[in-house]
Amino acid sequence: MTSDTPAPSQIPDIVIGRLPVYLRALERLAQEDHKVTSSHELGQRLGISSAQIRKDLSHFGGFGKQGTGYHIDYLTRQLKNVLNVDRVWPVALVGAGDLGRAVANYRGFTERSFHIACVFDTDPAKMGQQVGQCRVQDFNQAGPVIRRLDIQVAMIAVPASSAQKVADLLAGHGVRAILNYAPINLNVAAGVRVQHIDPVVHLQHMTYYLSD
Amino acid sequence: MTSDTPAPSQIPDIVIGRLPVYLRALERLAQEDHKVTSSHELGQRLGISSAQIRKDLSHFGGFGKQGTGYHIDYLTRQLKNVLNVDRVWPVALVGAGDLGRAVANYRGFTERSFHIACVFDTDPAKMGQQVGQCRVQDFNQAGPVIRRLDIQVAMIAVPASSAQKVADLLAGHGVRAILNYAPINLNVAAGVRVQHIDPVVHLQHMTYYLSD
Repeated sequence: MTSDTPAPSQIPDIVIGRLPVYLRALERLAQEDHKVTSSHELGQRLGISSAQIRKDLSHFGGFGKQGTGYHIDYLTRQLKNVLNVDRVWPVALVGAGDLGRAVANYRGFTERSFHIACVFDTDPAKMGQQVGQCRVQDFNQAGPVIRRLDIQVAMIAVPASSAQKVADLLAGHGVRAILNYAPINLNVAAGVRVQHIDPVVHLQHMTYYLSD
Repeated sequence: MTSDTPAPSQIPDIVIGRLPVYLRALERLAQEDHKVTSSHELGQRLGISSAQIRKDLSHFGGFGKQGTGYHIDYLTRQLKNVLNVDRVWPVALVGAGDLGRAVANYRGFTERSFHIACVFDTDPAKMGQQVGQCRVQDFNQAGPVIRRLDIQVAMIAVPASSAQKVADLLAGHGVRAILNYAPINLNVAAGVRVQHIDPVVHLQHMTYYLSD
């Protein structure tokens, strides 16, 4: 970041949460051979007002000129820099069941800056099995592996009943960002971030608007 | 809903989005044999302020008394009623690849009011294969099935390149709520709701706070 970029703590987390959505839309536009876009075009694609998009981006200096729009290539690079995804992060995946396997086989991670570098489980029957590009290792021995690979990011795909314990151990091994697929809220120490993937929460949000 | 419950449009969507998270926490508390909880306890579990929780619930009449907290059983029933999940919704799943299979095998849907009632794909090689509790049917023939089963909710687990076309067809068949696992923003007509599952957006949100 440049020296006049505000410190992270000054920008609302809800704004930060929208930046990856903007980045995804920009990458899609680039795939469609667009070179330039506007807050109006982005807003239409995302269902967000153009004013909101301009305001969000203004936190980081703006990136565009009035009337000429945004150069997609430039804005993409800048957002990647802001989000620290102008690099590839090694990720630990805990849980080698159905869900863990689907996560490991998901092809969308690598091209968007995440690489599953190790897969753990505690089931002896799963040790050594191939899951995605990794062989399953014993989660009870995860500490040295996580430290050797300098892993700060992990994904939890274990049953709800063991997710909190897994999160505690991961945090103890130095993991600072956890994406949790288990349907349970995790409590973590300050300095560790958690985001949840829970499809039912999204479904229930939508059924509010449906009539019986 | 009772006659003094505000019409859906009066309550901010961001409040509605938190109700399923409260419901999940209440169900977890019930599993742990709690009978009563408080906005303070819920807030601690969820990382949300107790004032926010009380304010959110006050949109629907409150559900609790000052000093005595919330009866978990009662509040659970009320939230299920508000969210229209005091019933089971049949869901159409489109996409029978790795991701679709993992979604179909996810055990968390049924007990939380969603039942995958049919699975579609367009790949001739997949027709008739067992995925979860369903056999794969031809998505090109989905209309009559969706109407016969009275399906209003669908999940899309197809590649990004075909997700928009699938969404358009689903909306045409009367689907009004779409949970999209493809890494692309979908444009849908007014009256159709979309929510996205994109793990990379969550990961990129967290890496903002990590240092290289």
